[in-house]
Amino acid sequence: MNEILLRRNKLLGENFPTFYEKPVHIVKGEGVWLYGADGKKYLDCYNNVPHVGHCHPKVVEAIVKQAKTLNTHTRYLHEGILDYGESLCSKFSKELDQLVMVCTGSEANDIALRMAQAVTGKSGFIATDNTYHGNTGLVSQLSARRPPIGGYKDNIRLVPSPESINPLGGTYESQIDLFAKNISIAIDELEKDGFGFAGFMFCPIFANEGFPTVKPGFLDKTIEVIRKAGGLLLCDEVQPGFGRIGTHWWGHEWLGFEPDVVTLGKPMANGHPVGAVVTCKDVMDSFRSAFGYFNTFGGNPVSCAAATATLQVIEEENLIENAKIVGEYSLKRLNNISNHLIGDVRGNGLFFGVEFVDSTGKPATKFTARVVEEMQQHGILLNSIGRCRNTLKMRPPMPFSKENSDLAIDTLEFVLEKLT
Amino acid sequence: MNEILLRRNKLLGENFPTFYEKPVHIVKGEGVWLYGADGKKYLDCYNNVPHVGHCHPKVVEAIVKQAKTLNTHTRYLHEGILDYGESLCSKFSKELDQLVMVCTGSEANDIALRMAQAVTGKSGFIATDNTYHGNTGLVSQLSARRPPIGGYKDNIRLVPSPESINPLGGTYESQIDLFAKNISIAIDELEKDGFGFAGFMFCPIFANEGFPTVKPGFLDKTIEVIRKAGGLLLCDEVQPGFGRIGTHWWGHEWLGFEPDVVTLGKPMANGHPVGAVVTCKDVMDSFRSAFGYFNTFGGNPVSCAAATATLQVIEEENLIENAKIVGEYSLKRLNNISNHLIGDVRGNGLFFGVEFVDSTGKPATKFTARVVEEMQQHGILLNSIGRCRNTLKMRPPMPFSKENSDLAIDTLEFVLEKLT
Repeated sequence: MNEILLRRNKLLGENFPTFYEKPVHIVKGEGVWLYGADGKKYLDCYNNVPHVGHCHPKVVEAIVKQAKTLNTHTRYLHEGILDYGESLCSKFSKELDQLVMVCTGSEANDIALRMAQAVTGKSGFIATDNTYHGNTGLVSQLSARRPPIGGYKDNIRLVPSPESINPLGGTYESQIDLFAKNISIAIDELEKDGFGFAGFMFCPIFANEGFPTVKPGFLDKTIEVIRKAGGLLLCDEVQPGFGRIGTHWWGHEWLGFEPDVVTLGKPMANGHPVGAVVTCKDVMDSFRSAFGYFNTFGGNPVSCAAATATLQVIEEENLIENAKIVGEYSLKRLNNISNHLIGDVRGNGLFFGVEFVDSTGKPATKFTARVVEEMQQHGILLNSIGRCRNTLKMRPPMPFSKENSDLAIDTLEFVLEKLT
Repeated sequence: MNEILLRRNKLLGENFPTFYEKPVHIVKGEGVWLYGADGKKYLDCYNNVPHVGHCHPKVVEAIVKQAKTLNTHTRYLHEGILDYGESLCSKFSKELDQLVMVCTGSEANDIALRMAQAVTGKSGFIATDNTYHGNTGLVSQLSARRPPIGGYKDNIRLVPSPESINPLGGTYESQIDLFAKNISIAIDELEKDGFGFAGFMFCPIFANEGFPTVKPGFLDKTIEVIRKAGGLLLCDEVQPGFGRIGTHWWGHEWLGFEPDVVTLGKPMANGHPVGAVVTCKDVMDSFRSAFGYFNTFGGNPVSCAAATATLQVIEEENLIENAKIVGEYSLKRLNNISNHLIGDVRGNGLFFGVEFVDSTGKPATKFTARVVEEMQQHGILLNSIGRCRNTLKMRPPMPFSKENSDLAIDTLEFVLEKLT
């Protein structure tokens, strides 16, 4: 084991996660590129945190300028959070015009759950059975990957997530009904068990569920059930948000519904630790009268400067349009790859899934892992996702070009040919 | 109401907290000084986040350099977190040599509680009845100021906090015994109610409790009780840590005990959103085998650069020694103020409390609030703390000089004379 891994194990603990069998040691980032300590250049096809590109000069400059001037908390007045927040909220429907700024998506989701509790007076929550919304004690109750410490509480129900291959009930259409039905059953259980139903937390593109194919309207019936039961729609936009999907700023716009609470994280300030909750006045009033929430670092002037610059670059560089164009181009190319292990190809803007199955239709988990490793060896960083980790996950920074896409997909074709 | 307050109410909600009746609009910070939009200069006697001084050039330079180079997560290898973590851990006893990096003190405390659960298999926690350890759903269970959303869970016990005036049982000595006894009763209750006892979370200088006078050894009996019951000592060093107290790096060193878990936050990176948990290998192993914790922004290269520079400045500028010298000087001056409403004066390094009581010995809450407002009007930023908010809280950035102290205390004398 190399020295840096030994130091990590000793300092960070032996199970501290890394990507790849031979983890990469990165020393520099620029645009869609990452550079290894050994001089190797990697095309970043995975990271959504450097949303407008690694070390984007405009974001760096905004951080520099504000860090030199002032960095303090929001109990003093400062225009940074107001200018940013008003710009951000202008990207949402006019009802969603209030904001809590925090430091991580986990903190945002932790608040969203409590907002639903404050509004409804109920404590029952629903999520899917193959998801992840963050790492706090409260939010990890929704983590389907690994039980939370202390086990699941009785007020949580995890319903079967949508799937691309083998959808619930057998067809895409049956899945729509079955998803709504399962939510309805979960609500009834929560009511029966005395918790009541506070809200459903979900990602509108079901990113962590393996990014299964869903189309606009997929949740219409589910939402009808939820609205009828009086629960809140807690929409986790950490992955689809900020134009990732190419056609819209937010996943919920694309899917076609109005959430009560939206949570934001990773890409929001291009790597600066920033997250947020956007909601309507009624929900905010309930939350703020129930709890005196204050976040020391949340919304500080430097965080707001980084987030403002990120928002500006998205618009100035037409990155949403780019996600659409390069997304469509890439999806077409991915669909044209001829390989018998490819069970499904899907994409939405600059977010792609390539699902591998063996000859009997079973998840090709080990094969997918080998593809990930080989791609890394050939200078392309991506990873796997899904219940059985048999879906390649490609989610590059937003300035990803057709040329970048060609390099990634040419390499993928080469690797698939080599491995099959 | 001025425009900026109207914008805040509309965007951030109507109960979003501010300091002061007429909140200050700050536009610039430098060292121990903050500058208002109206050109007014304020001496910052309150903020511990800008630990080595507002906009310290060395911290800014470290942020700039790293933000231009690389900002990514810790699933790739990077020396930033290792170099920083090893330096940080070298400030603790040799058992406390492992680290989780996060973005806020709240996230750190949220982990600490779960570490205790993972180690003990129990779920009962104790804190004091006049404290605050953070804002997540889990940690807000320990918030004594305002009930958490959904109410207190049955696995939480809040024991009476120490007091300077009217200590538990009547004397400082009786308070030592009574505190230990109350912890013992709480443990018995938690065991009886089936939760068992996982840990006691506390600040070793009881900062949020109003910073009552405690002396080294205060918790010796309590710790004996806790050790015997098999619970963990979860030590929140967000306020005393990084040399604030002048004589030691950490509050627990000064108080004289070895915690199982230490949490860090606010001052750690001089305002960059950074927090951490420091613990021993056994606790880390239990935590990491129980839950796959990962924090996207935690320990990123820019956060580590900011934290490293902060640590270096503390040492290069002898800020701990400065806290001791200026702390002692200031405490002496505060003790010499002659005012019949001063019930108690206390200090520990650069952290001071001046507690006001009326002629009958009752908390002079309104008077304290007036002092805070007047001090702001006269260019000195500080605030109040304690169960009845009748204690002035002074906790300036660490480069606070005798000259700064003279200005603050001269102004305080003037204000007290004016108001009494």
